Amino acid sequence: MKIAIDAMGGDFAPENIVKGVNLAKKEFSDVTFQLYGNGEKIRQFLDDETNIEIIETTEVIDFHDDPVTAIKSKKDSSLVRAVTAVKKGEADAVLSAGSTGALLTAGLLLVKRIKQVSRPALMSTLPTSDGRGFEMLDLGANTENTAQHLVDFAILGSYYAENVRGITKPKVALLSNGTEESKGSPSVKEAHELLSNMSEINFIGNIESRDILTGGADVVVADGFTGNAVLKAIEGTASVLMKQIKAAIMEGSFTTKIGGALIKKPLSGLKDMMSTDAAGGAAFVGLKAPVIKAHGNSSEIAILSALRQIHKMLETDVTGKLVEHFENMEN
Amino acid sequence: MKIAIDAMGGDFAPENIVKGVNLAKKEFSDVTFQLYGNGEKIRQFLDDETNIEIIETTEVIDFHDDPVTAIKSKKDSSLVRAVTAVKKGEADAVLSAGSTGALLTAGLLLVKRIKQVSRPALMSTLPTSDGRGFEMLDLGANTENTAQHLVDFAILGSYYAENVRGITKPKVALLSNGTEESKGSPSVKEAHELLSNMSEINFIGNIESRDILTGGADVVVADGFTGNAVLKAIEGTASVLMKQIKAAIMEGSFTTKIGGALIKKPLSGLKDMMSTDAAGGAAFVGLKAPVIKAHGNSSEIAILSALRQIHKMLETDVTGKLVEHFENMEN
Repeated sequence: MKIAIDAMGGDFAPENIVKGVNLAKKEFSDVTFQLYGNGEKIRQFLDDETNIEIIETTEVIDFHDDPVTAIKSKKDSSLVRAVTAVKKGEADAVLSAGSTGALLTAGLLLVKRIKQVSRPALMSTLPTSDGRGFEMLDLGANTENTAQHLVDFAILGSYYAENVRGITKPKVALLSNGTEESKGSPSVKEAHELLSNMSEINFIGNIESRDILTGGADVVVADGFTGNAVLKAIEGTASVLMKQIKAAIMEGSFTTKIGGALIKKPLSGLKDMMSTDAAGGAAFVGLKAPVIKAHGNSSEIAILSALRQIHKMLETDVTGKLVEHFENMEN
Repeated sequence: MKIAIDAMGGDFAPENIVKGVNLAKKEFSDVTFQLYGNGEKIRQFLDDETNIEIIETTEVIDFHDDPVTAIKSKKDSSLVRAVTAVKKGEADAVLSAGSTGALLTAGLLLVKRIKQVSRPALMSTLPTSDGRGFEMLDLGANTENTAQHLVDFAILGSYYAENVRGITKPKVALLSNGTEESKGSPSVKEAHELLSNMSEINFIGNIESRDILTGGADVVVADGFTGNAVLKAIEGTASVLMKQIKAAIMEGSFTTKIGGALIKKPLSGLKDMMSTDAAGGAAFVGLKAPVIKAHGNSSEIAILSALRQIHKMLETDVTGKLVEHFENMEN
């Protein structure tokens, strides 16, 4: 299998991207890693060139660029070239830690939607208190969604959880403002009814955002606007609380400071739980090939995790199965 | 001023409700507290009957009752009777710790909307890391909202923040999936444009849910579905993290446990920050009189806070000012 990698995208590119590839290529001898970017800079961090292809590109899309304009004007950017490789069949999947908007746009325009999936979605594995984690989508690829979009998201998430994360009959829930089926926006209520009648999905009903982190569902489906707001609320709350704890300890008495030093280890374990290092990247699902967005500030470990995720997606051919599923639905 | 109180609503009614009233009547000699419920049970907890009116009611609406049905069938419930008092002009405001749905329904049907406010909203003061707090609405009175609803929410929240919380020119922001004005659902984008042209609102643009807890805005406006999801995501994340910290300390080494004991005090300070005791109740704004919902599990201090909030709302006549504002808009 061949994975196209935007080596120049992200806050610590190409260093962390290339170092992540160094780790991944020790693990996967069946993969050719295509690195798109400045060859000289890439080689500075590359252990060796076994299973590596370096493809020279001259431009970089950064976070200030307007996504649509950038895709069209920076044709020789590492991001556009990497995505184009998938379009041309020269690579099976693509990874970037660059601009989310640009990757979504390029994915949509070049890799293209699976027929019958009206709206692709952004999906991530979020942490739960029991350590299992869950998939949540859409995290913001869309700003409004119909009931049918939500149903498509449920199918995409369920296939992913089953194939890539190895969960049998993943529990799929709809994010709503109450657990009763009578609760929700009009599109959520309609999606609830549609999903209740689908035997191929293990639909468990509505879930409130209060309960998603305790592992009530394996896949949580929301419209892109709400999903994005919930994801950022979780991130914001966790960040504020951790800072407050630190501040409370630092501003506390001598005794408090000693206490703080003694609990440093369990607290850092907590930080690990909330960290995205092990979770892989956000998958742009509903496209004809895996398109994965790693965090802009990804460590080499986060890049390794994203590459493992892509390897698993290719190995299980989850995208091929989805294509088949949606084709069968049409008949 | 007269405040109608549903003495039987909530998990710890009438005890915590009545004890909260005991505290409030020491503070406010200008208030008559009307307690609706079982007189005998109420008197068990009441210090004395100065400034108290007890109104006997025979029924109680509980959390299992369907709101609309309950309002119609339990006419002699403490909740319906208390709200009816406002309708009849026998009380100036109403407080309940009972069923949110029933209170919203009764408020809408009996107290009624301010003319020109198409959709009342549920609003609470949420904590920020700098201790100032902010108003957020709608937290779930509605499941979908138009741009005009969002604009109304901005006005309702701004007047409340200015009058009740004493904030000069409160900063009003729209919850969106990005800070740029081009970001958002169609209704958010439209509301953004409408608010940008309103001189009476200090509109600061979009805010992401990641940033609301750090005090970027005094009033955060969202549609009811998203607002509800964000509120519950904040609550859920805070709850999971606090439990995880506790578990990490309890399951840790002897040293960790000692550390945990030493930082118990600052951690409980953090719990206070997240606690709703001091924040007052959720205000159902956009109605012709203050309708306040206290948490179902309110302590006596939480009830006292909610009564202080109502006192401030009546003292500043924020509702009267809103009625005037919307009447003037009509001309």
